[in-house]
Amino acid sequence: LETLPEWLRLRPIGTIRTSFREPARTPIQPSRATGAKGQVQIDPAYGDGLKDLAVFERIWLIYWLHRAPPAKLLAVPFLDVLEHGIFATRSPARPNPIGISAVRLLSVDGLTLQVEGVDILDGTPLLDIKPYVSEFDSSLMQRAGWLDRSAVVTDVADDRVAVKGPDEPEAE
Amino acid sequence: LETLPEWLRLRPIGTIRTSFREPARTPIQPSRATGAKGQVQIDPAYGDGLKDLAVFERIWLIYWLHRAPPAKLLAVPFLDVLEHGIFATRSPARPNPIGISAVRLLSVDGLTLQVEGVDILDGTPLLDIKPYVSEFDSSLMQRAGWLDRSAVVTDVADDRVAVKGPDEPEAE
Repeated sequence: LETLPEWLRLRPIGTIRTSFREPARTPIQPSRATGAKGQVQIDPAYGDGLKDLAVFERIWLIYWLHRAPPAKLLAVPFLDVLEHGIFATRSPARPNPIGISAVRLLSVDGLTLQVEGVDILDGTPLLDIKPYVSEFDSSLMQRAGWLDRSAVVTDVADDRVAVKGPDEPEAE
Repeated sequence: LETLPEWLRLRPIGTIRTSFREPARTPIQPSRATGAKGQVQIDPAYGDGLKDLAVFERIWLIYWLHRAPPAKLLAVPFLDVLEHGIFATRSPARPNPIGISAVRLLSVDGLTLQVEGVDILDGTPLLDIKPYVSEFDSSLMQRAGWLDRSAVVTDVADDRVAVKGPDEPEAE
């Protein structure tokens, strides 16, 4: 390996608002969150970057998993009972807690996007938005690793990521 | 908006190796990079996180666009002649220079992944790997915004992002 830069810095460009206040029972993926609506509030400094976004049907939200538990390298994902390498799962307990979700874009009104299919916790810092383009992003895979043989059926997260947020009171 | 955290910090988990040394003529997307192979070298500290990854056919690489030009809010993307908001494009000149590419996973050999369909510059710092799961990630959209009416046809980037890297000599 060449020398890697020690730290890279990101700055939130907005905040994602949803009805999911706790990790437990939050949908685990947009495809399991049909009908769940949310709002994306963009910081005014970045408003010009939204030009022409409204004509896309679906967008990627790239965000900071601000309520993720500490990173680990092996995890039991929501859709299995066995442990896998963290990079073979979509678990939030990642070395770099970045989440990606392809959500349906309903409207753009000034600095507010209305979106549907959110599997995202309320208050999540937004890092980037990209248009979803089927040619770039859509692939029908024959094999999906351990998911192919998992018997676990669930649409929502359970308690395993229900860690307290940094600004959450100890007792409530 | 609530108060956003000022800065978030990431640490590279590895490096992406490809044959593309300069932004110009690098494929603009994996779908335009068929056959282009690359290697992902994982930092030994994160090796355990690769367990069971090899059984996935396709993976997301999340990476730092280390050669991106300075961020701007409006950009003319490679596939158009008109300016759009940066969040309505996949242009690298983003406020947070994060790239996502769904690439084909050919093999996992220790800390090295062989991948195909890379649209990524050599030496790119890797931030995360996620399994590509069609149920989560694949959508056939009816509308793809300005792309639907763009007449620009190209598979590779041009000079507009050919800025010098930080450690590149001025004259060569």
